[in-house]
Amino acid sequence: MKQVEDIERMTVVEASRAIRGGTLSSEALVTACLERIARREGDVQAWAHIDPARALAQARAVDRLPPLSPLHGIPVGIKDVIDTFDMPTAYGSPIYAGHQPATDAACVAQIRELGGVILGKTVSTEFATRHPGKTRNPHSPAHTPGGSSSGSAAAVADCMVPLALGTQTSSSIIRPAAYCGAVGYKPSFGLLNRAGLKFLSESLDTLGVMSRSVDDAALLVGALTGKTFDDPGAHARAPRIGICRTPWWNNADAATHAAVERAAAQFSAAGAVVTTVELDAAFAPLNEMQIALSAYEFYRALTHERTRHPSLISASLTGRLAAGGKVTRDAYETAQSHARTCGMRIAGHFGQVDMMLTPSTPGEAPGIESTGEPTFGLMWTLLGLPCITVPCGPGPSGLPLGVQLVGASGDDRGLLRNAAWAQRVLSAG
Amino acid sequence: MKQVEDIERMTVVEASRAIRGGTLSSEALVTACLERIARREGDVQAWAHIDPARALAQARAVDRLPPLSPLHGIPVGIKDVIDTFDMPTAYGSPIYAGHQPATDAACVAQIRELGGVILGKTVSTEFATRHPGKTRNPHSPAHTPGGSSSGSAAAVADCMVPLALGTQTSSSIIRPAAYCGAVGYKPSFGLLNRAGLKFLSESLDTLGVMSRSVDDAALLVGALTGKTFDDPGAHARAPRIGICRTPWWNNADAATHAAVERAAAQFSAAGAVVTTVELDAAFAPLNEMQIALSAYEFYRALTHERTRHPSLISASLTGRLAAGGKVTRDAYETAQSHARTCGMRIAGHFGQVDMMLTPSTPGEAPGIESTGEPTFGLMWTLLGLPCITVPCGPGPSGLPLGVQLVGASGDDRGLLRNAAWAQRVLSAG
Repeated sequence: MKQVEDIERMTVVEASRAIRGGTLSSEALVTACLERIARREGDVQAWAHIDPARALAQARAVDRLPPLSPLHGIPVGIKDVIDTFDMPTAYGSPIYAGHQPATDAACVAQIRELGGVILGKTVSTEFATRHPGKTRNPHSPAHTPGGSSSGSAAAVADCMVPLALGTQTSSSIIRPAAYCGAVGYKPSFGLLNRAGLKFLSESLDTLGVMSRSVDDAALLVGALTGKTFDDPGAHARAPRIGICRTPWWNNADAATHAAVERAAAQFSAAGAVVTTVELDAAFAPLNEMQIALSAYEFYRALTHERTRHPSLISASLTGRLAAGGKVTRDAYETAQSHARTCGMRIAGHFGQVDMMLTPSTPGEAPGIESTGEPTFGLMWTLLGLPCITVPCGPGPSGLPLGVQLVGASGDDRGLLRNAAWAQRVLSAG
Repeated sequence: MKQVEDIERMTVVEASRAIRGGTLSSEALVTACLERIARREGDVQAWAHIDPARALAQARAVDRLPPLSPLHGIPVGIKDVIDTFDMPTAYGSPIYAGHQPATDAACVAQIRELGGVILGKTVSTEFATRHPGKTRNPHSPAHTPGGSSSGSAAAVADCMVPLALGTQTSSSIIRPAAYCGAVGYKPSFGLLNRAGLKFLSESLDTLGVMSRSVDDAALLVGALTGKTFDDPGAHARAPRIGICRTPWWNNADAATHAAVERAAAQFSAAGAVVTTVELDAAFAPLNEMQIALSAYEFYRALTHERTRHPSLISASLTGRLAAGGKVTRDAYETAQSHARTCGMRIAGHFGQVDMMLTPSTPGEAPGIESTGEPTFGLMWTLLGLPCITVPCGPGPSGLPLGVQLVGASGDDRGLLRNAAWAQRVLSAG
């Protein structure tokens, strides 16, 4: 049998194979996760709710069944903006302290149906916006794990759980995954069912995955959608990659610039055709438009909270809600319409490249008082494109850096395959 | 002062003007509605939950405030798939009997913030699908009010409330409104915020309005979105109208065919340019594709219910869920992609016409054992176009018939203006 230290570091693909092969039980895997959490949670604070006895009971129950799916026996962390019928769900807000939903979100109920184990709820910032929760960066307690999927990124990066669900409205999967050294995958808008999420901005909110390998993320979305994304036998040709510096390149620091250029060189050395994608001036207003569009929707989605519980909303969110109340419908529709135009325009670039290479964040994780800047998520989220961040080695302070890979709208299968190739190249160094 | 009988029949535009002018109180309006309900609810059964004392307390509270918006003091019925923090919300299912959400849906909280009165919860079919609730057609207790927004349509048509929220995934606003003789308005996909709806099919579920006049629906969506839709001073030119018989014309009965042709003649006599829009063969599979796409999403959205409470799900929904579990992701994506293609194709027709005229239903309301066929809603919902049904006089059995008016994607302002014109023509007719 494997040692606990080996088990806690297994990828989902490895653990799934072992469980189905009878060499690993879900109970052993969940026990390894719980032991890691017992050792590390004091420092990392990734969990909003965890009940070891309940998790073990789930694991033992699925161990008694024949394997139901590749997810069988795999523990999953659930961001605390996603409803669970048997665990409190506070949406990162004191307004909902102790709140117990009646129903599992669709994704949670599906994971259970497929034999997965709901390990616990991971910390979210306040309503998945920017006011930080308690989580620390597992590489340095003085630094933020990023937000809003703070706990999911930290827990997965710290080997407390091999897989977790996150959500992204601005940069809330890509940013924390990059800061913590995890893989973060924001699917194309519409890939994963959102019933049971706490909505913030329904035209942007996207359910996605944190994992330690791209193939693990593919396994989960394959199980949830019934589509085959993982293709372990495939020997993909090296992809055509376009470096996209975006209109915000100067917001990234030198280490981030160097990380993107270094990744490009590694991809090129591994056989990829690497070119540069220049976005024209039409793309420059997209970040500001994402902010206006999302604020218009925040203001409406959180009407109950802002009218009934204003004193329990953070100052920063109060300010954003007030700003959202001033966004006109015309500005909102202009943003939608411009995003559609740019979406068609960027589709043209994907004729020449299979994926784009772009920063995940402006730099390493900043201090614990913020969750960092969403700069490199806003445009891609507004365009609805699939995005994956993969770790690319430490930055100058020794904290993780990631590079972001972006696929064509709806081409999650292609992006997952190419990003898996990219992760192999980068981890071979 | 007006008599109760006059008050209960007022449109929202009339009542709003009277409230703001100080000649009508919200308390008087709500009292008139409650008295009508007391007389008629035994026959109609439109309400899933109503608490007269609470409704009157809300009315008295807003009567003490200066008018906050054109919705000030107006009572609104809320379909019981929309969450309310102070009234039970059962989603039309025994699984949720007595369920009390923690939070108002965005639209409900906004109506309160704008000074509206939440009168009560209106009956929905089971999870807004097809298994009927208790509601009867107000024109004949042996006939269905249609579904799924059964209670909202019946309550508004019966003058129990001037305004109600409904939702449409297939034909759940248009069909019941037509059967009951109300105006039903399904906005363009994305117009109204959906936070706090029970999701069934998130790429189709659309929040909309039941009223007795098109201008009343415009008043509500204007207040919720911050956009000006109602323009009582406008003397719109007569619109260009295209009769669209759709690939399902032969599913409509002779009375429906005659109603559409008669409406076209009235519109033409009133100055409209009436032509015929022929949809090409690409549109023929859209209804079947809507059914496949929605079933794929039902299966996922209702995973908790179908796995934990299968015995509390109706036989018909159980069958649809089983069918949904067999729809492949490829079929789902094919439906999405084909809908996008047809959406672009139909946009071309809206260069020649301002709105289309098409059946609302296959005929008058059938008997109480079903909620009727969604035939004439499926394609338009899949395409996301704004649709309004307006009454066009009784059918051969003396039950209401409606005609459906459809606008270009996103052109809700134009459709509301033109449908208001059409309603004036038909009611003068």
